[in-house]
Amino acid sequence: MVGGGDGAFIGAVHRMAARLDGGYRLVAGAFSSDAERSRASGDAFGIDATRAYASWQAMLSAERARGDGIEAVAIVTPNHLHARIARDCLDAGLHVLCDKPLATTLDDAHALAQAARAAGCLFGVTYTYSGYPLVRHARDLVATGALGEIRSVQVRYAQDWLSEPLETAGNKQAAWRCDPALAGAGGCIADIGTHAYHLARFVTGLVPNALLADLASLVPGRRLDDNAHVLLRFENGARGMLWASQTAIGNANNLELAVYGSRGGLNWRQETPDELWFTPLGDSTRVIRRGDASMSEAAAAATRIPAGHPEGYLEAFANLYGDFAGAIRVHRTHGRCAVQVGAFPTIEDGLEGMRFVHTALASSHAGGVWLPLHGGMPE
Amino acid sequence: MVGGGDGAFIGAVHRMAARLDGGYRLVAGAFSSDAERSRASGDAFGIDATRAYASWQAMLSAERARGDGIEAVAIVTPNHLHARIARDCLDAGLHVLCDKPLATTLDDAHALAQAARAAGCLFGVTYTYSGYPLVRHARDLVATGALGEIRSVQVRYAQDWLSEPLETAGNKQAAWRCDPALAGAGGCIADIGTHAYHLARFVTGLVPNALLADLASLVPGRRLDDNAHVLLRFENGARGMLWASQTAIGNANNLELAVYGSRGGLNWRQETPDELWFTPLGDSTRVIRRGDASMSEAAAAATRIPAGHPEGYLEAFANLYGDFAGAIRVHRTHGRCAVQVGAFPTIEDGLEGMRFVHTALASSHAGGVWLPLHGGMPE
Amino acid sequence: MVGGGDGAFIGAVHRMAARLDGGYRLVAGAFSSDAERSRASGDAFGIDATRAYASWQAMLSAERARGDGIEAVAIVTPNHLHARIARDCLDAGLHVLCDKPLATTLDDAHALAQAARAAGCLFGVTYTYSGYPLVRHARDLVATGALGEIRSVQVRYAQDWLSEPLETAGNKQAAWRCDPALAGAGGCIADIGTHAYHLARFVTGLVPNALLADLASLVPGRRLDDNAHVLLRFENGARGMLWASQTAIGNANNLELAVYGSRGGLNWRQETPDELWFTPLGDSTRVIRRGDASMSEAAAAATRIPAGHPEGYLEAFANLYGDFAGAIRVHRTHGRCAVQVGAFPTIEDGLEGMRFVHTALASSHAGGVWLPLHGGMPE
Amino acid sequence: MVGGGDGAFIGAVHRMAARLDGGYRLVAGAFSSDAERSRASGDAFGIDATRAYASWQAMLSAERARGDGIEAVAIVTPNHLHARIARDCLDAGLHVLCDKPLATTLDDAHALAQAARAAGCLFGVTYTYSGYPLVRHARDLVATGALGEIRSVQVRYAQDWLSEPLETAGNKQAAWRCDPALAGAGGCIADIGTHAYHLARFVTGLVPNALLADLASLVPGRRLDDNAHVLLRFENGARGMLWASQTAIGNANNLELAVYGSRGGLNWRQETPDELWFTPLGDSTRVIRRGDASMSEAAAAATRIPAGHPEGYLEAFANLYGDFAGAIRVHRTHGRCAVQVGAFPTIEDGLEGMRFVHTALASSHAGGVWLPLHGGMPE
Repeated sequence: MVGGGDGAFIGAVHRMAARLDGGYRLVAGAFSSDAERSRASGDAFGIDATRAYASWQAMLSAERARGDGIEAVAIVTPNHLHARIARDCLDAGLHVLCDKPLATTLDDAHALAQAARAAGCLFGVTYTYSGYPLVRHARDLVATGALGEIRSVQVRYAQDWLSEPLETAGNKQAAWRCDPALAGAGGCIADIGTHAYHLARFVTGLVPNALLADLASLVPGRRLDDNAHVLLRFENGARGMLWASQTAIGNANNLELAVYGSRGGLNWRQETPDELWFTPLGDSTRVIRRGDASMSEAAAAATRIPAGHPEGYLEAFANLYGDFAGAIRVHRTHGRCAVQVGAFPTIEDGLEGMRFVHTALASSHAGGVWLPLHGGMPE
Repeated sequence: MVGGGDGAFIGAVHRMAARLDGGYRLVAGAFSSDAERSRASGDAFGIDATRAYASWQAMLSAERARGDGIEAVAIVTPNHLHARIARDCLDAGLHVLCDKPLATTLDDAHALAQAARAAGCLFGVTYTYSGYPLVRHARDLVATGALGEIRSVQVRYAQDWLSEPLETAGNKQAAWRCDPALAGAGGCIADIGTHAYHLARFVTGLVPNALLADLASLVPGRRLDDNAHVLLRFENGARGMLWASQTAIGNANNLELAVYGSRGGLNWRQETPDELWFTPLGDSTRVIRRGDASMSEAAAAATRIPAGHPEGYLEAFANLYGDFAGAIRVHRTHGRCAVQVGAFPTIEDGLEGMRFVHTALASSHAGGVWLPLHGGMPE
Repeated sequence: MVGGGDGAFIGAVHRMAARLDGGYRLVAGAFSSDAERSRASGDAFGIDATRAYASWQAMLSAERARGDGIEAVAIVTPNHLHARIARDCLDAGLHVLCDKPLATTLDDAHALAQAARAAGCLFGVTYTYSGYPLVRHARDLVATGALGEIRSVQVRYAQDWLSEPLETAGNKQAAWRCDPALAGAGGCIADIGTHAYHLARFVTGLVPNALLADLASLVPGRRLDDNAHVLLRFENGARGMLWASQTAIGNANNLELAVYGSRGGLNWRQETPDELWFTPLGDSTRVIRRGDASMSEAAAAATRIPAGHPEGYLEAFANLYGDFAGAIRVHRTHGRCAVQVGAFPTIEDGLEGMRFVHTALASSHAGGVWLPLHGGMPE
Repeated sequence: MVGGGDGAFIGAVHRMAARLDGGYRLVAGAFSSDAERSRASGDAFGIDATRAYASWQAMLSAERARGDGIEAVAIVTPNHLHARIARDCLDAGLHVLCDKPLATTLDDAHALAQAARAAGCLFGVTYTYSGYPLVRHARDLVATGALGEIRSVQVRYAQDWLSEPLETAGNKQAAWRCDPALAGAGGCIADIGTHAYHLARFVTGLVPNALLADLASLVPGRRLDDNAHVLLRFENGARGMLWASQTAIGNANNLELAVYGSRGGLNWRQETPDELWFTPLGDSTRVIRRGDASMSEAAAAATRIPAGHPEGYLEAFANLYGDFAGAIRVHRTHGRCAVQVGAFPTIEDGLEGMRFVHTALASSHAGGVWLPLHGGMPE
């Protein structure tokens, strides 16, 4: 693991997700650029003192020298370091599981993607919400035609934690996320808008060919957007609407997806992730629950406990870790990865997310105009 | 009443709404342009045979000749007749309660509005959703500053009844609503988008100065839009997003409004109209119920029965009728109307709705571009 | 109408319900035992001054003398007068629509029922909740075997308006409802427990043969029960549980019914009456909405407006009035009533409710023991 | 760990819960009485082959002989073995975390409790639902008087997985749970009723002094109860109602608690565990979410991730494991346990659960009569 010292939010989430199913052992890390803090974190995580490094470079060279060196790396640093670290890990022949965004510019992301394709290592990106069982079931419903031809997509991701100017009030999370130098040019659109976009793409499989964005900084003085309105047009003629906000008081992580087709509609909310509402044309709505007999194979495989005993975010995250572990096992045997598309989000998804954010920023800066959004998920 | 013969949907709603509180007596009507059918309807409604007319012109002249002639008219005909009938009623010195839209073109609507302003009669437009008690409470929360400065507005009106091409399958409602000659140039945007727009304007009081619309006919072969995506920019810098659809399978009349300000957020859904969710900044969400002690005066006045015994659409509709009756009583006494803005939607709201639809159509036809939307609710 | 002077709660509800569908005209009443107040109320309701009487006796004799005298009477007085007035109305050959309870003692109720059976007039009892369309659909689901053999019934009616000792604080509604002399020996069990019981009986058709009740006065100093726990055993072996409370803070009129059978389960809540949740064995839950294609004929007939535009308590109440009007029309033609069982609650249901309350009180007074509960709905 | 071989349901849950926060290492186990299967399971769990034992006795003696032997044991076998194994573990000086029930008879449970009190080891019982953060917050709301004097408690635990006679259809879980020889004399009442009872006791702290139960086997041919109706009377005069069922089609693990006091009411549902509805007297309902600023210290401490990212059953389970780990650490330092009551359910809770089941069975067998239920949680 690179980053994620004791106290960091997302690092702890990664560790819990990795531990939950017992498929990983955390044996080394560069948890902080401060040697002392990295060692202390390593200690807290039960890691051998010699393997808590002061830099990722030190980690990579020392681990390579061991017979039992690490096999995969989780990158959980601030955004602006992702690309450099990931590149070095790939060069070291390690599998990489990286938080989004891949990089702070689209060019850097393209370069990294090219490197990853060449490297022959696995590269996963933690678009967490695709790990929920009922999101996978939704995807399968669409794929098997239960909704018919998709006509419209509504997706929202609303938070409220940035409703006040916390970035000037000593809140660390807010400070780096609202600072263009550390977070990149996108605020809310990059932080959570990209999750909403990936979710819509993951479930529908639709390829958008144009978007229009109206981004705003609704909190006075904020330097990055904290509210994003995006319109989408898909190749097949379907239309989409995406709203992301970090200033919507009363919403914690209210990610919601609705998909409408010619034969049915579905609705899923991350805050009640164990339910999927599905309405066949002309019939009553079904409340599909994780564990129902009708669950698709993929959804059932992403489930640990019976229906009615709720699973949540950590379990979804652990599903990505589990998928990634499965891919590593395949890779060990077959040399190259033979994992089916969609089992976990790959670098192509990460790149697509970068493209989305980049285009949305360009559209909004131009006053809110339609811009082409080339290409689909796997180029 | 003009239109609304036995069997018509909205005419029956008007009659129930008018009856509920006992403030009106239906004594005359031109229920159909077929004399026989008009008489039969009048008979069904318990109306004296001599007062069931074959045309509104006949009704107006005959009623004017009576000592006890009608005092107000409800216009519930197909859209393309609204303006002509309303004009004639105003000329006859009658108060008018008219379904939206005012007319099929913005020019006609402007002309009618001018006539109405000159006439000195009352003119109400049935933007029904503003009649719900908790919508009025929401408006009062905003007005009293409970939400602080408004930053963002999300409004949706999703139906599914036009998910199939019913207009070519013998469905009368669908046939006229999807025919430009009878419904006007707007489909979904005019039929329900305008309701969503009015609701947002009613609750927030915000004045939008630009919009951008992406309208689509998602059902193959449909001649009018059945899905509308609209972005809004308000004078105070707030942003808005509006989605209206008649092809969203699983939604019956899913009208939902969320308003976010610097100090709080609120959420209301028409399908559960007796609840309003309000979250003050930094605090837990409140589920405000019709009848709670905290209800505003206006909301409490729009309530008939205790909390927990649900009121619905007809009661909201009856609230408009009740407000209109109150205004008529004031008018009787004081010669001119002295009713406070907001008690019921007026012709200015009707005009604003026309302007919204007109601008949205123009924006969409231009490929989805920003257009100015002049003016606010009361010009 | 007897009782229900201007300002009274349930009288106003009756008038709105009667007006909604235009099937009734209120032409006479004894709205108060105070002649002046009765006249003033009559005036407020638009009734001819000569027909606003100071007593029901005066009303009955005067109306009988008219050629156009009243045909039916709604009794909305305090409980202790119901039986006497109803008896006199029957003797006058009038149809009666009476609030529950029929009487303050079971013996009086039996006597009244016998009189009603002999009289050949219609006798309706306003068990309002059976008027909801989805309650009727639930009944039809059970009747057609969609749930299989019924095994268990859970019903609750929770309010909170008596959580404080309002009866000693000047609240009139609370004062008479908590006074044994005016309300009878049952408090909460009689006021709302009987509604819950009727709802369970109406939907399931099951005949209970024993009950056990534990009634309590949870607010210190209260003279009647304000919380009721009741266990039921049905003839077919099914079990039931009923909870009624007027001290459950956070509940307004939270009436909820769940019925479980060998092939399915259903759930309905009065506060969201337009939805019925139905789960077939081994399948996903269906959210059945008023207006869904699958609605039973009886449910569809009790519906006025399309799904998604909510109907509520007044509409349910109006359905009882409508059913009663239909029965009167049949009665006019055929001499005797030929209306199918279940269209509206009859005196037999009123009697069954009395029996339930009587037995529950006896069980509780004996310390909470099982007592037989003879008989079913249609004796 | 004793029991919980590869494939067993609850063993896997224990392992995930133990792993989630990294506080435990699973190093030894007697996963099956079949030596081969135990070894295979140990292998699957990554355990040293020499420490996967064929019996708990073998495990206890071998581990005692090691310098680095186990410190605590999780007992996840079928019910009838709990008491013997626990006793042996205590004798070996090990801390015990045991599934409920403690034993198959109340006498055995008493004996075990006495042994545990004498042993000076920690003894936890996995009443999982007390691990949910908002259950702990609910407890703190009651304890700090936010609800005033508690007046009534409603608790339900409804499942549907035994709606058919699965025990005769080859379902293993059903087979042992419906077999008196393996599960004990209680079916549903012992399997889930006791969870509901513990939850009510945990949150309210109320001591019941009498209960009455009506247990039934609603599925023809079933040998144990599958539906339980229980009435409770508490020392302070409050009343309670408990419903547990495994035949309520449409319910997966619908555990719901409502508590009403003189100053407020609260409601919590296990299937949406991140919300707690709290209504102060005379005010609007609050939707308290995990992570809200108002959370009690205990609730906040039981939380891993921000509000809106759902936590579920495994996290609640892990909270018990975490509390138990904390107690073990204290025990290491201070010799004896000094952990505050309530941090995790202890053997006294386990004993209270046995007493509840025992008394409910006795009451029901006597036809449904009131029986005293001596004692409270901490004797």
